[in-house]
Amino acid sequence: MSKALSTTVQPFHVMDILARCKQMEAQGIDVVHMEIGEPDFPTPEPIIQAGMQALQVGATQYTSAQGLPELRQALSNYYLNRFSAEVDADEIIITPGASGALQLLFAALLQDKKKLMLCDPSYPCYANLSRIHGAERIAVAVDESSQFQITLELVERNWQTGIAAVMVANPSNPTGTLCDVDELKRIAEFLEQRDAYLIVDEIYQGLVYTGESKSLAAAADNVFVLNSFSKFFGMTGWRLGWLTAAKKHIPALDAIAQNSYLASSTISQHAAIAAFNADTQLILEQRRQQFQTRRDFVCQALADMGLTLSCMPQGAFYLYVNIAKLNIDSFDFCQQLLQEQALAITPGCDFGQYRANEFVRLAYTTSEDRLAEGMRRLAEFIA
Amino acid sequence: MSKALSTTVQPFHVMDILARCKQMEAQGIDVVHMEIGEPDFPTPEPIIQAGMQALQVGATQYTSAQGLPELRQALSNYYLNRFSAEVDADEIIITPGASGALQLLFAALLQDKKKLMLCDPSYPCYANLSRIHGAERIAVAVDESSQFQITLELVERNWQTGIAAVMVANPSNPTGTLCDVDELKRIAEFLEQRDAYLIVDEIYQGLVYTGESKSLAAAADNVFVLNSFSKFFGMTGWRLGWLTAAKKHIPALDAIAQNSYLASSTISQHAAIAAFNADTQLILEQRRQQFQTRRDFVCQALADMGLTLSCMPQGAFYLYVNIAKLNIDSFDFCQQLLQEQALAITPGCDFGQYRANEFVRLAYTTSEDRLAEGMRRLAEFIA
Repeated sequence: MSKALSTTVQPFHVMDILARCKQMEAQGIDVVHMEIGEPDFPTPEPIIQAGMQALQVGATQYTSAQGLPELRQALSNYYLNRFSAEVDADEIIITPGASGALQLLFAALLQDKKKLMLCDPSYPCYANLSRIHGAERIAVAVDESSQFQITLELVERNWQTGIAAVMVANPSNPTGTLCDVDELKRIAEFLEQRDAYLIVDEIYQGLVYTGESKSLAAAADNVFVLNSFSKFFGMTGWRLGWLTAAKKHIPALDAIAQNSYLASSTISQHAAIAAFNADTQLILEQRRQQFQTRRDFVCQALADMGLTLSCMPQGAFYLYVNIAKLNIDSFDFCQQLLQEQALAITPGCDFGQYRANEFVRLAYTTSEDRLAEGMRRLAEFIA
Repeated sequence: MSKALSTTVQPFHVMDILARCKQMEAQGIDVVHMEIGEPDFPTPEPIIQAGMQALQVGATQYTSAQGLPELRQALSNYYLNRFSAEVDADEIIITPGASGALQLLFAALLQDKKKLMLCDPSYPCYANLSRIHGAERIAVAVDESSQFQITLELVERNWQTGIAAVMVANPSNPTGTLCDVDELKRIAEFLEQRDAYLIVDEIYQGLVYTGESKSLAAAADNVFVLNSFSKFFGMTGWRLGWLTAAKKHIPALDAIAQNSYLASSTISQHAAIAAFNADTQLILEQRRQQFQTRRDFVCQALADMGLTLSCMPQGAFYLYVNIAKLNIDSFDFCQQLLQEQALAITPGCDFGQYRANEFVRLAYTTSEDRLAEGMRRLAEFIA
């Protein structure tokens, strides 16, 4: 009998939590979900309408691998108007989600057992996708002292030969914290001198509540920015993202795209053009404010139960909470919290190893009512 | 300055043809397109309607990585009713196009410099995607003597250690020929004894004009079948495909899917359920018949100009034509044919190396009028 396939990819621990959630909900138990990395808002109506319009006119054939010129132009305009970044439409590749962008970059950068530097904690797909591409990971432990972000000093201290790229997320998942863009530019310079590249994941761009949403797009020739219509634009199920790259890198990335996924969804691309309408932007700004209200509410509730955050998350929709003072391993904490209070959150071990047993991630991707109920349950649990 | 990214992926030669087409069309020249691997028919109306319905009800959030249970069940029923194949809904993974399925399989099967056996000629993305995954290719030259398909004898003769999988397409691109499914089952047995796997690309399934459309789904534990809604179902721009795998392989493939692309387009998945309606199936059968008429027309036209096909293509929408008797390299032939007669076709060198300079691929993905015009131009060119 043939062997069952195996993979070097690590399972998400939150999957155990989710499986248990399903069982509990099947028994009629009301679970509060604060583990979900997906906005609870539906796709804004103007985008839905544009998608229906695309279907009505039969825009259902392949686009080029690089993507619809109109959408790339809309993104180019957006970078200029919102971030004062000059990104030519030809320096943008539309991808099937930010995952698709990451696939292209890893395929281009990590061949032949190259090394990828990333933060611990960070979004688990970075490490897993790099495993799929056969790359080694240099995990850099980050904590409150650097707002859970990489710094030039950390890059220098952890540098070794064979590193092809440094991966950062701004804002970060799971911590919601921002990188200093000037620091990122200094890191890019350091990497430039070593023929290495900086990949900046800006998938939570726009979801910033303290300070300003900035972009590293077009900051330097060795910087790649990836982004998505999923989070800020509310288009998760549409599976659409993009990356920016200096013009000289486009031919190789385009060739990989042609062979990896041919093209992104045509309907999603047409719909996404409407993401930049004034109407849509107004809806998105209202949602951003709602997320901010939620963040402030949950932070205060946590502080009230003695779980003050050591650094305030400025963006995304996550809080990375240190529960060390409760003297319980964070994975056990998540399991018991679900079992006893029907509140689902994500254990730190899904994001790395460094002090992972001290941290849990809370997502404020549900209504204020539900968040209030979640905080009530958490308070009861730790009382 | 940072180095421009490079890739081991090979460019498609037809891209030169396409670029020249664009220039010519910009000058007002009427180009006949017989190079395109995409049906000219729009997506059937019931599928469009189902897509619009999904948008209306706001089905825009992520599905699970494995895909909508209703769609997987519809596919399971389809396999049973149409191909008498028992494929459980849990043995199906919905993917972003057949490309997505190939990515999953190559990520699982080809890690650590494994080898992939494939036909020369074959669809170029097989080789290129295997390069991206760092695998070595064992190309098996195939020709008229085996209908351009692999045989057990060819597998045995070319066998070597380190081969993890054999890749076949049924029907084949670029040749349109079918594999004998009993021969494929014998190959699967041979591979089973060597802990190796058979991947069968059935993306042109349903588009069969001579003989019967068969499936290798669920034929053996070491067989993976990939397929897509693009070609037969007319959903290219929706980017939706699937793969079938024995249940024991699903956890590893699902983990890779979660990290590679998270999920396939939700709208496309809802729309695709309508692909199995009686209404849609009727439209698809009419289209199949139209493709058959086109195939017969082009084959006869070729025969009339002395280019009789040595083996009749039974499926897909391609003809692989030997032009050796014209004493011209096939790539030069394609370039001159475009230049002098404004007829675009694809050179053999896009599909491999074996006798590639003797062959060109013609696609009958345009109307009968245009095909007639194309054949008139071809006849004039070679006269």
